Amino acid sequence: MEKISPLAPKKFPTMPPVAGVRLGAAACGERYKGRHDLLFAEFGPGTRVAGVLTQSQTPGAPVKWCRQLLPGGRARGLVVNAGNANVYGGRRGDTAAIHTAKAAAKLIGAPAEEIFIASTGVIGEPLRTERIIGALPGLYENLSPTAWRTGAGAIMTTDTFPKGASRRAKIGGEYVTIAGIAKGSGMIAPNMATMLAFLFTDAHLPVRVLNTLLRVANERSFNSITVDGDTSTSDSCLLFATGAGAQHPSVTSARDKRLKAFRLALEEVMTDLAQQIVRDGEGAEKFITVRVTGAASEAAARRSALLIANSPLIKTAVAGADPNWGRLVMAVGRSGEKINPNRMAILIGGQLVARDGGIAPGYRETMAARHMRGREIELAVDLAVGKGTATVWSCDLTHRYIDINADYRS
Amino acid sequence: MEKISPLAPKKFPTMPPVAGVRLGAAACGERYKGRHDLLFAEFGPGTRVAGVLTQSQTPGAPVKWCRQLLPGGRARGLVVNAGNANVYGGRRGDTAAIHTAKAAAKLIGAPAEEIFIASTGVIGEPLRTERIIGALPGLYENLSPTAWRTGAGAIMTTDTFPKGASRRAKIGGEYVTIAGIAKGSGMIAPNMATMLAFLFTDAHLPVRVLNTLLRVANERSFNSITVDGDTSTSDSCLLFATGAGAQHPSVTSARDKRLKAFRLALEEVMTDLAQQIVRDGEGAEKFITVRVTGAASEAAARRSALLIANSPLIKTAVAGADPNWGRLVMAVGRSGEKINPNRMAILIGGQLVARDGGIAPGYRETMAARHMRGREIELAVDLAVGKGTATVWSCDLTHRYIDINADYRS
Repeated sequence: MEKISPLAPKKFPTMPPVAGVRLGAAACGERYKGRHDLLFAEFGPGTRVAGVLTQSQTPGAPVKWCRQLLPGGRARGLVVNAGNANVYGGRRGDTAAIHTAKAAAKLIGAPAEEIFIASTGVIGEPLRTERIIGALPGLYENLSPTAWRTGAGAIMTTDTFPKGASRRAKIGGEYVTIAGIAKGSGMIAPNMATMLAFLFTDAHLPVRVLNTLLRVANERSFNSITVDGDTSTSDSCLLFATGAGAQHPSVTSARDKRLKAFRLALEEVMTDLAQQIVRDGEGAEKFITVRVTGAASEAAARRSALLIANSPLIKTAVAGADPNWGRLVMAVGRSGEKINPNRMAILIGGQLVARDGGIAPGYRETMAARHMRGREIELAVDLAVGKGTATVWSCDLTHRYIDINADYRS
Repeated sequence: MEKISPLAPKKFPTMPPVAGVRLGAAACGERYKGRHDLLFAEFGPGTRVAGVLTQSQTPGAPVKWCRQLLPGGRARGLVVNAGNANVYGGRRGDTAAIHTAKAAAKLIGAPAEEIFIASTGVIGEPLRTERIIGALPGLYENLSPTAWRTGAGAIMTTDTFPKGASRRAKIGGEYVTIAGIAKGSGMIAPNMATMLAFLFTDAHLPVRVLNTLLRVANERSFNSITVDGDTSTSDSCLLFATGAGAQHPSVTSARDKRLKAFRLALEEVMTDLAQQIVRDGEGAEKFITVRVTGAASEAAARRSALLIANSPLIKTAVAGADPNWGRLVMAVGRSGEKINPNRMAILIGGQLVARDGGIAPGYRETMAARHMRGREIELAVDLAVGKGTATVWSCDLTHRYIDINADYRS
């Protein structure tokens, strides 16, 4: 067992039930011993679902299965196993996902096409489904509306702590709940693929609206974090809306003003989970916030910020507590985004370091160095060409990352 | 002084003079003590020049100076200093480059607009030119046609060995010589910006032809290597053709068949130097060759290969001698290039590991693991969609990389 990340939250949050959602976990021993490695969740009738899936061209079988199901927009269950990602398993891998869905569907009494599947773990090893399918009936007997922590723990691979977050928000004067769990410890953990995030709400919203809300929030949360810049074959983020708490008025457009609080709450839950993933980044000792302002657009700002956040030279400088702003100049220069090199500004820990093509008057490196010795590092760049802003989160690159990833698998 | 890279060539090659080129080095002590840090080269009248410069939007003053000069296509001298990159120095930095060019021009008796400048070293510190300009006259007295090793040594920053290569080739039945020196130890060395490469030939070729030959060879050499994926603010590759050895017939097109041997020789010199840079990659213990075949185009193959070569998860797997082919599946999947996941093939050390969507029959991991324990690692992927091929070179990601780059600058 890994030592818990020094950046981990003090404890797993207290999370309320979400009407229409019950979940639980079991140990099926596909790879791990002595721990839960299987999550099962059931959703009430009428549950709608939206999702964003990895853009990898070598996606896992569960991703392909979910991609087929999403246009239907309906969900009654979710099964997630940890230890084997069921990636690159050919037809046999596809069959494994379908068999799992069918077994869960039978227990719930729903079509298999409403059972979502995710797998995380080793790539390229055949997934044997007997243990998973064998564990489902007993697990189904014991589903509970409050098993968030158990569920979040069951989907961990090299994660060092379970990740959960929740918020309440009003739609048209009536409260709804949003709860989420996630896993990930690197865009790809060692041999273990994946970032997974599952969001649950009792709001009653059309699939089209859910998809829009999820996509926008996803850009600003999970698509705004990076540990090592590698993209998993299994990344999946699914939003289930049971409608079971729906006292609120009917809403048919994602732009409806009554959704503002819900939109913000969803973004908060997703950002909270995304930041927890970075805080559990492989070998992470420091949490880095990169803010880019003055870009040509929000998307341009995000691309520049991710380039800074992904640079091994910046990540190692942070590890070494070196306020090496020359590397920020380098990273911004190579981003390909529009910049004004003679007007741009660079800040470390809120202190202006450079601007207008040179070191800022009054810049004190001792202050910047003190900031860099902390756990929470803030880097900011203003590109001086427009109004686009974005914030992304990353972690430092340490010896521990190499220890973890250079270890032979066996 | 760093320990010499375990991947370094046994010795600096024996390099012939290039008619019309004299060079030398001196210690001006801008940053380093007790070593040469200034290179000066003079070219005979009529020398033509072609160049490719960093695409960074925060280029150093020397890069901006060279960019102004290149359309003229004429060169009489080259001055390179190591220790200070003269980047992000504002107007003062631009003036420093111009003053250096003027001083060299006066000695040679040529216009300043024919003196090329490059600087490599720390970003963001003002470059004082007095020492450089003061050292030039004595240096000019002692230029020699054979000071390749001295010259290659003077432009090193964190390099652990000097880099040189040469070839002879016939144009229309007559021999010409190509010689080159380069520096670089990471796309960006710690605080030290830069990959620099200077090529010299006595061939007599028009600027247009030189530019075409240089661009094509550059794609397959310096643009096909990566240490950490970061792009320097100072990357420069210049090709000087003195015409002084020109017994060969006049050639006016880069497509002229009589240039075939020269084209190959130029590519060989540049690839040789490029590979030496990778062999001196920060912390490198293993040299990685990534070959991609079956891509939609050569450019697509190169992009896929660079993505594999840049992946921290693959670089750490190589460091750990782990034939972790799942990470190759991941990297190919995220490249965004066209692939056929059900037909693609993966090879490690020439052994077929996976194909047609699963592990290859007869794959022996022990053999792949033995290959991975060597110094020279070969990874190959066939994307199964077209005829594009490319080869790129990289090195592993080791603890030493972090030691070097997480060190505080002072």
